[in-house]
Amino acid sequence: MKRKPTDVMTMTPVAYIRTDFPDKFGIPRQSGLLPELEAVIVFEPAFRNPDALRGIEGFSHLWLIWQFSGALRDKWQPMVRPPRLGGNTPMGVFATRSPFRPNPIGLSSVRLIAVEQTEHDGMVLRVGGADLMDGTPIYDIKPYLPYTDNHADASGGFAEPLRAHELVVHDPDGLLERLPTDKRSSAVTVLANDPRPSYQHDPSREYGLYFAGFNIEFTVSENDLTVIRVTPL
Amino acid sequence: MKRKPTDVMTMTPVAYIRTDFPDKFGIPRQSGLLPELEAVIVFEPAFRNPDALRGIEGFSHLWLIWQFSGALRDKWQPMVRPPRLGGNTPMGVFATRSPFRPNPIGLSSVRLIAVEQTEHDGMVLRVGGADLMDGTPIYDIKPYLPYTDNHADASGGFAEPLRAHELVVHDPDGLLERLPTDKRSSAVTVLANDPRPSYQHDPSREYGLYFAGFNIEFTVSENDLTVIRVTPL
Repeated sequence: MKRKPTDVMTMTPVAYIRTDFPDKFGIPRQSGLLPELEAVIVFEPAFRNPDALRGIEGFSHLWLIWQFSGALRDKWQPMVRPPRLGGNTPMGVFATRSPFRPNPIGLSSVRLIAVEQTEHDGMVLRVGGADLMDGTPIYDIKPYLPYTDNHADASGGFAEPLRAHELVVHDPDGLLERLPTDKRSSAVTVLANDPRPSYQHDPSREYGLYFAGFNIEFTVSENDLTVIRVTPL
Repeated sequence: MKRKPTDVMTMTPVAYIRTDFPDKFGIPRQSGLLPELEAVIVFEPAFRNPDALRGIEGFSHLWLIWQFSGALRDKWQPMVRPPRLGGNTPMGVFATRSPFRPNPIGLSSVRLIAVEQTEHDGMVLRVGGADLMDGTPIYDIKPYLPYTDNHADASGGFAEPLRAHELVVHDPDGLLERLPTDKRSSAVTVLANDPRPSYQHDPSREYGLYFAGFNIEFTVSENDLTVIRVTPL
């Protein structure tokens, strides 16, 4: 195998994503799990050219290639322990979508909702179902091509049905009304999806979800989630 | 949007792929179009650790993230002219899978055929349907997760049916018998898939396909391809 100096590849962000998740806690574990969550892709000035998006509105879904910028580590480990396997079953890193990879690159498919002209950011892409933290750098955007990306026959290890278990969200004091109107139903969706780490099940523990500029605090007992405090960040 | 110095990302190859295509001519235009084409992924010594592959055999398909190393250019252009649109319709680069992108990164799904222990290269992955040139550097390998990567409802621009048109391959002098036995049917498949650039249709023109160590020369008239020479490279 001939190696070339250019095989070590340096990538510059073409865009950043704006989402309602300022940290990784509460982010859906994969793209598409919560399709109603909206995010906005804002291009860097050097790539803010409407021509580069010509024809993209004809696609229903896009691929995003991005960096796990909230989970960088100096060293990679050959095995990781996926949360969805309870956090105690080691799997090879190449058999998982874990962030802790030799090259910490993420791959997500999102629904393209709209291509929008904005006053301050030029043309942006409004997308649904992104599992990215706010401010994540994006290196490439590609159309999802059904004839080559869809594998109806694909099977895989620990595949998970959409929304394996949902929590019932209780907000007895109407605290979620402190959120902007257009963020309330998304917040309930994120809470119902159970943003706790899979292996924590202490009913007395108080959790905090940073979402859309607020800290939403809650407890969980069995399948019931109760909102206990909502405060601006 | 806060930018961090680590947003400029440097990636090191974790593996290289061995395919029968020493140059880009004849490579299927997308992964999966010719599923019977086999390739081998060989890990770099630093990543040649069987633990890193633990559990991967449970997946039917994998994603490869790689560099368009055979098509590097100094400057990106906002628009490209996809061959399948006849080479004369400009499309935004982010609306295509063109190699000529701001970050020249490729994304392909392949079928996982086998995880094999070899004498010289350690554990390798044998895969089907790769659209990569021989020696392409690979930066990441991820399992294809049906519940998040499959979009039965996806629609897109210039989607193309599998093997839109096939050529009838004629080999009146039995020249393809010069190829190794296990490469002959793959060669016929690649020829039938029409390895010419889409916009060339000159019946007197002689084409050469480099495949599996041989130069396979041929002409094409209407839907008939005729092999005229087969010589070792």
